[in-house]
Amino acid sequence: MSSDPRISLIKGDGIGVDVSEAAIVVAKAACAKCNCDFAIQTINAGAEYYRATGQDIEPDGEEKAGEAQAIFLGAIGLPSVRYPDGTEISPHLRLRDRYGLYAGVRPVKAYPNAPQRLADPRAAGIDMVILRESTEGLFYSAAVHDRSDVVPDTSVIDKMLVTRDISEKLHRFAFRLAQKRKSRGKAGRLTCVDKANVFKSMAFFRKIFDETAADFPDVPTSYNYVDAMALDLVRQPWAFDVMVMENIFGDILSDLAGGLVGGMGMAACAEIGDTIGLFQPAHGSAPDIMGQDKANPLAAILSASLMLDYLADTCDLPAFADAAGLIDTAVEAGFADNALRPMEFGGDMGTKAVTSEVLSRVW
Amino acid sequence: MSSDPRISLIKGDGIGVDVSEAAIVVAKAACAKCNCDFAIQTINAGAEYYRATGQDIEPDGEEKAGEAQAIFLGAIGLPSVRYPDGTEISPHLRLRDRYGLYAGVRPVKAYPNAPQRLADPRAAGIDMVILRESTEGLFYSAAVHDRSDVVPDTSVIDKMLVTRDISEKLHRFAFRLAQKRKSRGKAGRLTCVDKANVFKSMAFFRKIFDETAADFPDVPTSYNYVDAMALDLVRQPWAFDVMVMENIFGDILSDLAGGLVGGMGMAACAEIGDTIGLFQPAHGSAPDIMGQDKANPLAAILSASLMLDYLADTCDLPAFADAAGLIDTAVEAGFADNALRPMEFGGDMGTKAVTSEVLSRVW
Ligand SMILES: CC(C)[C@H](C(=O)O)[C@@H](O)C(=O)O
Ligand SMILES: CC(C)[C@H](C(=O)O)[C@@H](O)C(=O)O
Repeated sequence: MSSDPRISLIKGDGIGVDVSEAAIVVAKAACAKCNCDFAIQTINAGAEYYRATGQDIEPDGEEKAGEAQAIFLGAIGLPSVRYPDGTEISPHLRLRDRYGLYAGVRPVKAYPNAPQRLADPRAAGIDMVILRESTEGLFYSAAVHDRSDVVPDTSVIDKMLVTRDISEKLHRFAFRLAQKRKSRGKAGRLTCVDKANVFKSMAFFRKIFDETAADFPDVPTSYNYVDAMALDLVRQPWAFDVMVMENIFGDILSDLAGGLVGGMGMAACAEIGDTIGLFQPAHGSAPDIMGQDKANPLAAILSASLMLDYLADTCDLPAFADAAGLIDTAVEAGFADNALRPMEFGGDMGTKAVTSEVLSRVW
Repeated sequence: MSSDPRISLIKGDGIGVDVSEAAIVVAKAACAKCNCDFAIQTINAGAEYYRATGQDIEPDGEEKAGEAQAIFLGAIGLPSVRYPDGTEISPHLRLRDRYGLYAGVRPVKAYPNAPQRLADPRAAGIDMVILRESTEGLFYSAAVHDRSDVVPDTSVIDKMLVTRDISEKLHRFAFRLAQKRKSRGKAGRLTCVDKANVFKSMAFFRKIFDETAADFPDVPTSYNYVDAMALDLVRQPWAFDVMVMENIFGDILSDLAGGLVGGMGMAACAEIGDTIGLFQPAHGSAPDIMGQDKANPLAAILSASLMLDYLADTCDLPAFADAAGLIDTAVEAGFADNALRPMEFGGDMGTKAVTSEVLSRVW
């Protein structure tokens, strides 16, 4: 028992509560089926918690979160609750920094019968990952860090930092991810997305990509400028597999890519550091529909699958990878059979019905 | 005669030559029909010129370009020709700075029978403008300006500058553009696209937007974060009219938006400053197809229309606006009749045939 990995669970605000509960139920069922298990420690955090206590996370919550092997986060934030300076409640950004969660993994996959924005039938083959650096880049200058040069009411300079250290780790992660996808029957190609034609930071980012590539001769690579990448994502997204890029570029392109295959309701996300990973649906807390059994739990459920896969690797417990596979297959088959019809996509199934359908296929 | 406005013509490299010649012929014909005219001074510049002379623009060319009312630019750059530091030949970036061409206007419109990426039939109604600030933002730190903080082989910091001065001009331009579009039967709405939830520069950008809005109570406004905007551009682009944003955000989102309606072959662009405007197709020089009568000249032709419209306003010569209208109508009707079938879109018409078809409808 004591050898079970442990996760920190932050349900957060709004539908974060609904969907993280759904995701945990599914993850537990998949693990039970594969004879593995994980322990849960719940941590209170978020805008609601801030309103009640004046703190955005429980005492020592950040530290406690990091004592587990993984963190699962529902969603944080409420429009009406802000810090005194007017910015949004975001212990999540601090967790990214504190635990150096540099590798933001955002898979994007077309499911049958799920919304498909593109007219070209090849769009049914979309199956890619945006790898977003998540600790530096332009977010080095996120307001919480107070690193902007401000001349009051006259000008503001924000700063985009690219370091060798993080870029090496990121690109290495990207190449390994491409290899892993290859071993799972996917394309296993890697595109470095930058703006090396204009910015020194981006030329440096590409230089380190090239250096790293030398260690992975088996992975086919290409380059794309970020503007051309945005165009290619609407023109021929099926031609891409793994794309690695700076933080704000990944923020923008992962939403774009997610939009192609149904929007944020399917947007799973993992943020991986050297010692811990954080897993969360990339959508927000949507307080207008909280507690109404309307939210689509699939982004959270797919994030839980990413978490189990991560535990398999880092704890060297292959049963967790089997559990992750069960979840992925359940979602895939559920859509193929038109048995998964989330309200978000105009269907008739609320949070509970979607969760039950996935559960019945996992278990 | 002497009162005719004058333009500086930089044909540049590759297909820049083909398409700028096509655009000038069409513009001249439209003007002739409307009893107006403009004079042309040609300026040599580009990668080919650099290879031949060691300079990227003719002696005093930058200054000379600015003595006209407008600059028309084909395309600049050849993959094999670079500055000694390895970056691309770009007198264009210097012209943007020298003449303070802060307002990058990138219209995006769906034409009948032209490629349409989105499955939803409402995409036929796409008719919007990305207004891209074009002198500061992250491009403040473009390599040519040498403003990055570099620790050799260790880290690079690039800088995103937002100033009150430029932002005020930009937002004012945006509101006027929305009003002008309203007067022409378009939606006339304005969306401020930023990332004010995370960056001080972006919160400042939005603050000046709000201040400016007070002077334009007739223009309906909204906000969108840049990531959500990328998603909305694939989910419901028809819901947007004018969108105003920082430089790199506009670079990315204008390519994305252009991709929705046929890619760069239709991507017209105007870059407007206080005293002069520069007009160019947003595509590159595509040297692989230069001189082969294959390039799609429509982005250049639509850019020429933007130029005539600009001359009408700045020189107070309404006949130029009529000439611009003739071009826009010719392209619209040409597509509607399926008489414009550029090779770029799988059609049978090269540069000359497309140009002749537009000409025959203008004249
Ligand atoms: C809410 C915001 C700070 C966050 C980000 O930009 O990282 C979100 O957009 C995301 O993509 O996770
Ligand atoms: C070529 C490059 C410098 C340029 C830019 O980023 O401004 C291009 O992408 C554009 O959009 O005009």
